[in-house]
Amino acid sequence: MSVETNLNADIGEGFGAYDIGDDTALLDVVGSVNVACGFHAGDPGTMRRLVIDASDRGISIGAHPGFNDLWGFGRRRIDMAPADLEYAVAYQIGALQGMASYCNQRVSHVKPHGALNNMAAEDIDLAMAIGRGIRTVDRELIFVALAGSEMEMAAQSLGLKLAREGFADRQYEADGNLTPRKLEGSVHKDPKVALEQVLRMINEGEIVTRQGTTISRKIDTICIHGDEPTAVTLGRSVKQGLLQAGVTLKPLTEIDLKN
Amino acid sequence: MSVETNLNADIGEGFGAYDIGDDTALLDVVGSVNVACGFHAGDPGTMRRLVIDASDRGISIGAHPGFNDLWGFGRRRIDMAPADLEYAVAYQIGALQGMASYCNQRVSHVKPHGALNNMAAEDIDLAMAIGRGIRTVDRELIFVALAGSEMEMAAQSLGLKLAREGFADRQYEADGNLTPRKLEGSVHKDPKVALEQVLRMINEGEIVTRQGTTISRKIDTICIHGDEPTAVTLGRSVKQGLLQAGVTLKPLTEIDLKN
Amino acid sequence: MSVETNLNADIGEGFGAYDIGDDTALLDVVGSVNVACGFHAGDPGTMRRLVIDASDRGISIGAHPGFNDLWGFGRRRIDMAPADLEYAVAYQIGALQGMASYCNQRVSHVKPHGALNNMAAEDIDLAMAIGRGIRTVDRELIFVALAGSEMEMAAQSLGLKLAREGFADRQYEADGNLTPRKLEGSVHKDPKVALEQVLRMINEGEIVTRQGTTISRKIDTICIHGDEPTAVTLGRSVKQGLLQAGVTLKPLTEIDLKN
Amino acid sequence: MSVETNLNADIGEGFGAYDIGDDTALLDVVGSVNVACGFHAGDPGTMRRLVIDASDRGISIGAHPGFNDLWGFGRRRIDMAPADLEYAVAYQIGALQGMASYCNQRVSHVKPHGALNNMAAEDIDLAMAIGRGIRTVDRELIFVALAGSEMEMAAQSLGLKLAREGFADRQYEADGNLTPRKLEGSVHKDPKVALEQVLRMINEGEIVTRQGTTISRKIDTICIHGDEPTAVTLGRSVKQGLLQAGVTLKPLTEIDLKN
Repeated sequence: MSVETNLNADIGEGFGAYDIGDDTALLDVVGSVNVACGFHAGDPGTMRRLVIDASDRGISIGAHPGFNDLWGFGRRRIDMAPADLEYAVAYQIGALQGMASYCNQRVSHVKPHGALNNMAAEDIDLAMAIGRGIRTVDRELIFVALAGSEMEMAAQSLGLKLAREGFADRQYEADGNLTPRKLEGSVHKDPKVALEQVLRMINEGEIVTRQGTTISRKIDTICIHGDEPTAVTLGRSVKQGLLQAGVTLKPLTEIDLKN
Repeated sequence: MSVETNLNADIGEGFGAYDIGDDTALLDVVGSVNVACGFHAGDPGTMRRLVIDASDRGISIGAHPGFNDLWGFGRRRIDMAPADLEYAVAYQIGALQGMASYCNQRVSHVKPHGALNNMAAEDIDLAMAIGRGIRTVDRELIFVALAGSEMEMAAQSLGLKLAREGFADRQYEADGNLTPRKLEGSVHKDPKVALEQVLRMINEGEIVTRQGTTISRKIDTICIHGDEPTAVTLGRSVKQGLLQAGVTLKPLTEIDLKN
Repeated sequence: MSVETNLNADIGEGFGAYDIGDDTALLDVVGSVNVACGFHAGDPGTMRRLVIDASDRGISIGAHPGFNDLWGFGRRRIDMAPADLEYAVAYQIGALQGMASYCNQRVSHVKPHGALNNMAAEDIDLAMAIGRGIRTVDRELIFVALAGSEMEMAAQSLGLKLAREGFADRQYEADGNLTPRKLEGSVHKDPKVALEQVLRMINEGEIVTRQGTTISRKIDTICIHGDEPTAVTLGRSVKQGLLQAGVTLKPLTEIDLKN
Repeated sequence: MSVETNLNADIGEGFGAYDIGDDTALLDVVGSVNVACGFHAGDPGTMRRLVIDASDRGISIGAHPGFNDLWGFGRRRIDMAPADLEYAVAYQIGALQGMASYCNQRVSHVKPHGALNNMAAEDIDLAMAIGRGIRTVDRELIFVALAGSEMEMAAQSLGLKLAREGFADRQYEADGNLTPRKLEGSVHKDPKVALEQVLRMINEGEIVTRQGTTISRKIDTICIHGDEPTAVTLGRSVKQGLLQAGVTLKPLTEIDLKN
């Protein structure tokens, strides 16, 4: 039986006169996209254009909700009450669902952005708040959650579909968290290293950490970052390597999540 | 056969620490509400609370999209490209639909707010843009449009359900537009005058204008303003007067629109 | 020699169509005001109106910078880099200075708002960032800081003028922090209790804490909160009590800060 | 006597994670910069960095106030009351003055941005509102105004210093307005054409219009646009051509405005 996985990327993080990342290039690499919803980035026109572009390519469309903080690009931790966070997530999913009407497609998944993702990975109250927002808007939505995080717990506790996320280009710590960006070597810039990490994740369910230990993680989807200059090149290279290794790349909606 | 109509009000125009209007009192007067969607006013928590409160009372829930302008409360004209406006409307409807998931109800209608409503009443390109946004998100949505305006044209041209709106407390000009607020007498403060105007609208399809002429208008829904101190009192009085006159008040979704 | 002090209040926290607190009433109670600068609340028109009103009454005008978070009213902690915070503070002071040109007066002091004030009271890096922003814009500005907090340290370390702030209507903990609002009794609603606390602060430099201990604090200015319904009444009562006790109330600029 | 002029550019129109235009390259071309103030673009950190960079090069620093509309980049007309506009301009100038404290320099001039500039060029009420905001904050500020526009009238009427602006890369209409961008040939992409237009402006006070007529305009400062890919190249080329033609390029503060 052939091994399969999904590649995902965060897109639509420009708005108005502003552009960031190379969305068009990423659409040729991935099988699912996480579209910014106008809070940390994005605007209605950008959202509409990208859901159409994704739909045209058979790519799964997901919401990428973040904090309401354009100046901080959603990368600053904001101490929101869990209920307020829940409603802000529901709002953003609904807004993207409105824009996805332009391609007659449903939003298939939700992946929190930036500081919100980092906070909810560690805080079960925030993770549950996000999960409740997702479940209220559409019980069929897939919660894309850092493998092994509190978000994984929340998704399971709420009976939500869950896609456990791994990272192609990021170093891991022994506790399963990502190595902070400020540390040397936190980002894999060598496509071979990234490919090797991804192959080990999906073939053996293992990740070798910065400390040299090996941790077990079931990974359903692999994130390709788009906001660094080298990211698209690395993404393309990982994709080619996976195909050459016989891995089948699929839209997220066609992955067997075995939750 | 008994005469019927719908009373509507704009609500949810506070957010965070801010409050404006008396939403709770208005919910006891009207059969449909137009909920601010976070652009000119409102936030996810306010939207959620009010869709639940409205649903509990059997009141039809509508989107009240406006310009993205908190400082101007959506009352300043902004010269948006029609396409950008269309997507901004679709976004706001989607966002409210997300929040309406909290009461397991669909958004039933859309009424533009403030300067957007005034501009689209006069400009067919903007009116069509709003109509396209509505149609894309949900073809069953009712477009609540100033009777006789370009929005009425747009709704008909796009095959959308249409609810023609009249105003209880506003004076009309001979050309069918509302008398500008800066003119003396533009707002009816006497509940008897307001009731008389409403009864003539729904019984005879006529409005007596400031100039003394009579114009014909089919009216499906009557707006009760909520942002003036005397408005709730006037609204209650009009409601009682209509009931005493034998008029049946209904949710907007139960009005026979005969488009 | 007569005892003197300054009463201060946060004002200008409405904007556009929104109103909050009773600014006009507070202007009759206090000798200095902290004006919201458009980030957590306020807008240019509100700022202009209030600096003129304050100036007309001989009241010292201060900046009340907060996080850029209208939906959260500046009450949500945001994890800003100290440098970004410093520049955001300098920006807001400059903006208010621009508006203070309308009354030909200088901004005399700076008091951080809400979550920013709470965070900087405990975190020397944030306190120093605020202090550097203040010092860069105008070395003569007075830093209004919670007595005994890291902001007091920062002001002294940077050679800034310092006004140590006490609270009329808030209970204190044994460690000198304010009793969290969620605890019973955290807010003094009885004007007599508030007056007694204030008199002890300014006469003896002491505060009796919730735990019953007594702590020493030099207090230069007393905050009267304006955002609770009972606050203006309490503020008036405290002012009358102070005057009856022979305390001289002054603008902040006329207080002998003895730093 | 040698002919002199000033080249100016709009800079600082990125913020947070966003970048737009090539500010560093423009700083090597111009003698004055117009810095976005956080309303249509820009943020405190960007403003601080650029005032320091400009100051280090002896470049005059100006405020570039715009509408409070990040999604529209200040390019959408917003129908503000003149008083509200005046205060919004004063606020932005004050904010930049706060940031200019970081280089111990004064803001020397003010040039409105985008749609605000276009509207005020045609509308004396808006032009006067901008002028009043400028005059209130600092009577020494230079109002940079499209030559021949209502802003020129307003500056003169208010007794403000005036720098009449011409454009290197834009075609003019017979009435003295810029040819709308949507028309073919509205932007000069050939550096030789731009240089020729500039030399004629500053040597003879004349502009040849799209219709072939010649209009008289005194020009004190020449705008080099920075937001098109070819703009920096064109700007460099114009600068070299002017130097070769013996024109002296100066900071705006050293230009003899002869108002």
